[in-house]
Amino acid sequence: MKCEVVAIGTELLLGQIVDTNSSFIGEQLAMAGIDSHHQTKVGDNHERMVAVLRHALARSDAVICCGGLGPTQDDITRAAIAEVMGVELVRDEAIAERIRAMFRGRGRSMPENNLLQADVPEGAQINPAMPGTAPGLICPLTGEHAGKVIYAVPGVPWEMRQMLAEGVLPDLQRRSGFSGVIRSRILRTWGQSESGLAEQLDDEIRRLDATGDATIAFLASGWEGLKVRITCKAASEPEADAALDHEEAVIRRIIGDIVFGVDADSMESVVLELLRTRGQTLAVAESLTGGLIGSRLTGVPGSSDVFRGGVTPYDRDLKRELLGCPDVPAVSEEMAIAMARGVCRVLGADSGIAVTGVAGPTQLEGNEPGDVWIAVQHAGRTDSRFLKMPFDRERIRQFTCIQSLDFLRTRILASG
Amino acid sequence: MKCEVVAIGTELLLGQIVDTNSSFIGEQLAMAGIDSHHQTKVGDNHERMVAVLRHALARSDAVICCGGLGPTQDDITRAAIAEVMGVELVRDEAIAERIRAMFRGRGRSMPENNLLQADVPEGAQINPAMPGTAPGLICPLTGEHAGKVIYAVPGVPWEMRQMLAEGVLPDLQRRSGFSGVIRSRILRTWGQSESGLAEQLDDEIRRLDATGDATIAFLASGWEGLKVRITCKAASEPEADAALDHEEAVIRRIIGDIVFGVDADSMESVVLELLRTRGQTLAVAESLTGGLIGSRLTGVPGSSDVFRGGVTPYDRDLKRELLGCPDVPAVSEEMAIAMARGVCRVLGADSGIAVTGVAGPTQLEGNEPGDVWIAVQHAGRTDSRFLKMPFDRERIRQFTCIQSLDFLRTRILASG
Repeated sequence: MKCEVVAIGTELLLGQIVDTNSSFIGEQLAMAGIDSHHQTKVGDNHERMVAVLRHALARSDAVICCGGLGPTQDDITRAAIAEVMGVELVRDEAIAERIRAMFRGRGRSMPENNLLQADVPEGAQINPAMPGTAPGLICPLTGEHAGKVIYAVPGVPWEMRQMLAEGVLPDLQRRSGFSGVIRSRILRTWGQSESGLAEQLDDEIRRLDATGDATIAFLASGWEGLKVRITCKAASEPEADAALDHEEAVIRRIIGDIVFGVDADSMESVVLELLRTRGQTLAVAESLTGGLIGSRLTGVPGSSDVFRGGVTPYDRDLKRELLGCPDVPAVSEEMAIAMARGVCRVLGADSGIAVTGVAGPTQLEGNEPGDVWIAVQHAGRTDSRFLKMPFDRERIRQFTCIQSLDFLRTRILASG
Repeated sequence: MKCEVVAIGTELLLGQIVDTNSSFIGEQLAMAGIDSHHQTKVGDNHERMVAVLRHALARSDAVICCGGLGPTQDDITRAAIAEVMGVELVRDEAIAERIRAMFRGRGRSMPENNLLQADVPEGAQINPAMPGTAPGLICPLTGEHAGKVIYAVPGVPWEMRQMLAEGVLPDLQRRSGFSGVIRSRILRTWGQSESGLAEQLDDEIRRLDATGDATIAFLASGWEGLKVRITCKAASEPEADAALDHEEAVIRRIIGDIVFGVDADSMESVVLELLRTRGQTLAVAESLTGGLIGSRLTGVPGSSDVFRGGVTPYDRDLKRELLGCPDVPAVSEEMAIAMARGVCRVLGADSGIAVTGVAGPTQLEGNEPGDVWIAVQHAGRTDSRFLKMPFDRERIRQFTCIQSLDFLRTRILASG
C-alpha cells in the first residue's frame, strides 16, 4: 500500500507558507505503517493539478490532497479531482445545510460562495470529521485506477489533522490490511561526524540490512549534532518498543557516550537534568556567546530550580569588575578559568560554564576568529579546553554553546 | 523558463525534518522572476530519484536538487543525476584535495568516505561556492533533454543558500535570457498585523496594480515581524533602484515608523546603530529571557563597541545581590525599573533594557504565563510597559525580546 501527498497552493511554491502539513501527514503515514515515497507541491492551477494527481495515481495506491477546499475562486481542488474521476460536481444538500447551520450557529450571515464547498465530485464520500465549513472528501476511483482512492483534506492544519485521524488513516489501514505498528526512536549525538558515525556503525547497518530487525538513518542537524534514527516494524507496540530498546542498547555499546539524549532531549535539558538529580545549581559567564547559553538553558521549562543565572561581561573591564578576573588576556585559558570560578562564587552556584573567544569577522588581541577558550567548574574542579573553528560568526557562537554544555555534561558523568 | 525543486531525503517524507529549503528556493526563484510550478520530495532511493528527475525534466527547463550530497551510503544524488545524464561518476582530484585540505584546516583526520563527495557526473561543472565539504553541481543535459540543466545543492541550509545565490540563480538568469533587472527590497516592520498593513496600503496596492510601477507582497515572519517586499522590474539597475527608492518613500509615508529596518537589518542591528551614532552604550538585565536579548545583540558583528554586557539574575535573590533591586515582587513594574537602572549603574552603560515575567507553563507568584514587565533606560529617563501574551514559552520569550528592543528603539527616536 503506497500513499503519497499532494499539497496544493501557489503560496507554498512561492515560499510564503512553509508546507508543514505534508511533513505531518508523512509522519502519520509512517507511524501507521503505510509507505509514502513521494510528496508534491503544486499551485492553484487546474491543468497542473490534474496532471499531478494522474501522475501520483500511476505510481501510488492512494493520494492525500491537502488544501484548495475553501470557498474562493482559487479553491479548485474539488474540480480537479472530479476531472480525474471523470465525473461532475454535484451539490450535496446535506453538506450545504450543515454549512448554513454553522453560520447560523455563529450568528453570522453566510456569503453565498460558501455553498461552493458543498459541490463534491459525484460518487465521493464525505470525511466523517467536519470541524470547519469545508468537507473532507474520500474519492474512490474507477476505470484504469479502479481500487485506488484520492482523499481531500483542507489546508487549515487543525481541520486537516482531525480529518486525517478520524477519516483518512482508518480508511487507509482498512484498505492496506496492515495490522502491525512502526516505531522510531532518535538518539541525539554530539562530537562525531556523519561519515565517522557511518564508519563506526557500518557492520551493524550491514547486519540490519540482512536481518531486517531495524533500520538506521542519520540526520545531520548542524550545531544540534547528529541524530541517529532507529525504526522497527512489529506486530504489536510492545514488540516494536522491545526491538527499539534492544537496538538502542546495541548502538550505544558501539558509539558510547557521544549519545547525549533520546528523542525530545536537548543538550541543555540533559545538562539541567544531570545537575537536578545531583541537587546542584548552575551559573554561566558568557563573553563570546553573549547570553546564548543562558538563553538555551532558560528555554527549558523548570530550569529555574537548577539555573541561578548568568553574567555577560562583554566589555573587557567587566570581567574584572563583575567576576574578579585577573588582568590576563581576554581570550586565554587563565581568563576562562577565572570566569568559571568567578561566576560560581558571585552567583553562588555549584557548577559553572565560562566561554571567551573571538566570533569574528576580525581578529581580537592577536586571536583569530574561531579561537575560543571554554572552562567548566564542577565538583570543586575546573577544566578548560581550547577550540579552533573555521566557521562564520553565527556558527562559532552556536558550536561554542553546544560544545561548552557537552563539556560540562561529560565532566558531570566522569565525576559520577 | 521553468525551474522546479526536488528535495531529497527519506527524513523529509517521514516528517522528521520540515522541508524549509524548498520554500526558501521557491521564494528566491519567484524574486528572480523564474516560474516554478512544482516541488517534489523523494526519499533516498535510486530508482525513484531517477524517475522523479526524468519526470521533472519532461515538464521543466531546469531542476534544483536539494540534499543527498553527503559522504554516507544514503547520499546517492550524484549517482542518480549521473544516470539521468547517461554518464559515469568520475573522481574530481581538485575537489578531493579541497576536501582533504578542509579537514587538515580543522585539525581533524578525514574518514576516507568523505572523498566520495569528489565523485561527480562526467561533464558536470562545480558550483563556484563550496562552503562545506560537499561540492554543488551544475549538470547540463544532452540528448532528449538538451539545453536543460540539473543543479545539485546540499541540504544543509547555509551551504544551500550560498550556492543558490552565487552559482544557481546567476546561471538560471543567464539561461532564461532575461535581460532586464528585477530588484526587491524588504521593509522590516514591527507592531502591525498583516490585515492591518494590507488595509493601510490598500489604495497604494490598487494604484500599483493599475500602473505596474512595482509589486508589494507581505511576508508574515512571526516574532521577526512582518516583511513588506517591494519588487521593481526595469531595464537597468539604476532605474530599478530608483523605482525602489521612490516606492519605499511612498510606503514609509503611509505606514510610518513601524518600519524599523530594510533588507538585512534586524531589530538588534538597528538599535545598536542608533546608539552607535549617538556615541552611547547599552546593557541588559534579563530575567525572563535568560540571555536571549544579549545573545541577539552580540550576534551582530561589531556590537562590542556599543554593548557593554548583561546580567541574568534568574534567581530571585540575585536581582538584589547583583543589581541592588529592592524587595518588591519579582514580576512587577518596580522590579523592571530597578533592574534597568541597576544594570546601567553596575555595568556603566548609558542605556539599558530590563525584562521580568512569566514564561510558563505554570504561574509565578500569582502572575499568569505571558505576564511580562519591560523597562528601558535612555537619556536619563526610565519607561516601562506591561505585556500580556497568550503564547507558549518559546514565543513569550521571543516576542518579549523583540518588543523590548523595539521599545528602546522608539524611545531613542523620540528623544532625538
